[in-house]
Amino acid sequence: MKLLRHGPVGQERPGLVDAEGIIRDLSSIVADIDPTAVTPEGLASIAAVDPATLPAMAADTRLGPCVGRPGKFICIGLNFADHAAESNMPIPEEPVVFMKATSALSGPNDPIIKPRGSTKLDWEVELAFVVGKECRYVDEAEAAAAIAGYCVCNDVSERAFQMQSSQWDKGKGCDSFGPLGPWLVTADEVGDTSDLHMWLEVNGHRYQDGSTQTMIFKPAFILAYLSRFFSLQPGDVVTTGTPPGVGLGQNPQVWLNEGDRVSLGIAGLGEQHQIVVSA
Amino acid sequence: MKLLRHGPVGQERPGLVDAEGIIRDLSSIVADIDPTAVTPEGLASIAAVDPATLPAMAADTRLGPCVGRPGKFICIGLNFADHAAESNMPIPEEPVVFMKATSALSGPNDPIIKPRGSTKLDWEVELAFVVGKECRYVDEAEAAAAIAGYCVCNDVSERAFQMQSSQWDKGKGCDSFGPLGPWLVTADEVGDTSDLHMWLEVNGHRYQDGSTQTMIFKPAFILAYLSRFFSLQPGDVVTTGTPPGVGLGQNPQVWLNEGDRVSLGIAGLGEQHQIVVSA
Repeated sequence: MKLLRHGPVGQERPGLVDAEGIIRDLSSIVADIDPTAVTPEGLASIAAVDPATLPAMAADTRLGPCVGRPGKFICIGLNFADHAAESNMPIPEEPVVFMKATSALSGPNDPIIKPRGSTKLDWEVELAFVVGKECRYVDEAEAAAAIAGYCVCNDVSERAFQMQSSQWDKGKGCDSFGPLGPWLVTADEVGDTSDLHMWLEVNGHRYQDGSTQTMIFKPAFILAYLSRFFSLQPGDVVTTGTPPGVGLGQNPQVWLNEGDRVSLGIAGLGEQHQIVVSA
Repeated sequence: MKLLRHGPVGQERPGLVDAEGIIRDLSSIVADIDPTAVTPEGLASIAAVDPATLPAMAADTRLGPCVGRPGKFICIGLNFADHAAESNMPIPEEPVVFMKATSALSGPNDPIIKPRGSTKLDWEVELAFVVGKECRYVDEAEAAAAIAGYCVCNDVSERAFQMQSSQWDKGKGCDSFGPLGPWLVTADEVGDTSDLHMWLEVNGHRYQDGSTQTMIFKPAFILAYLSRFFSLQPGDVVTTGTPPGVGLGQNPQVWLNEGDRVSLGIAGLGEQHQIVVSA
């Protein structure tokens, strides 16, 4: 299933995309695509419905972040060997874990808001997954079974804010720095995630053109690893790092400015289209 | 007012402490001490009630974290010059910002759970504040007016996890690493926060004995600073750093083990008492 959230900012309602690509409203089935809906029981209640019986929405309806009210938004840094190299950072021996503020979440096609004082606004196409079961000290097989689904995330970053101190969170969690979606594609529909094409363009120029094949740590390993440090709850979002081609890695470096258009996508998970605006 | 949350884990109900020290249940007034209740309107609705009309609870009722369902749990590191020195870190030019997972929140007297594999479990008494109004690019005066209240936080830390990579979040956000309370004391009742005594003892030995007087960045400055990077929402918790005397700074270093008893407090904000258990 391809689950989504549609409607105005802060008033999103649950929905899905049917086999014909029509957005259908799920409000009669679940309250939201939220921590309750992404559990096995929640997903089963949605799967039991014939989409043709659900109200169709306009094709141009706004989409919100594809998961509502997650408790955590965890990021893995430097998880592609080539990206670590372009960032002049060593390849990590264990996953590098940091967090985005959940207030950074935005819809897949919402504007990227360039913060006041921003000088080094950058992009990162990433494969995110959403947790469907509580996880504590789980092994890799249990972790694999606890992933509700996958989605596209643009891990928008302000490099000057990120690098000002030793800790990155400040440059990762600004409002609008977490476009998520368009859809949460359930794990059964995504299937094998070991070689998904990932790409990102700015003003039509392709900067990132990679694959999950070159990820160092894979989703199930990451979730098992994280569960040694935090308990994970249904709805938690984990984004797994970016392939090479970010603005930081260009020579000379390239930063986003007002009016720039960013497009990105991952095979099977849909596309995002953002325009940069000033705060 | 001294606001609190009482009852079993995950089923906490709102309450307050009256002038006689009796815990009174606020369930008939607000749903929870949560993002809605800590707004100016929420606090006014509680202030309008005569506590004597509210049901009294047993003095030994369990207390939960004094704020429920915060969107963010932000930390400021190395915010006391002497603590930076004992950590062998430079005094920061700007606040060092990182995040604790909101799943780390626990009641003020709940056990500290020592994670599997933990070898360097440490303590940090801190002054936390709770945001009462949405903040975006606010100045220091606006920030001061947006603080709903203050509480004690033990910023429990696992130094081996914290220092394994460049990013600290992994060693800061384990379950039970955020005891918060006993009370959220409203800003009007706390008054001047510039010289509050802060202390922490392990097994009766006093390790931390400081004052907010030696904080580098003060709460209103911190909130204004953060609002340049994130929007802050009502209910967000910000903890502001620890004075010297953590286990990391002892010679030889001292780490918490199963059975250890930790007590801490801040003048006017109450005390916490924790026992260390194994995961």
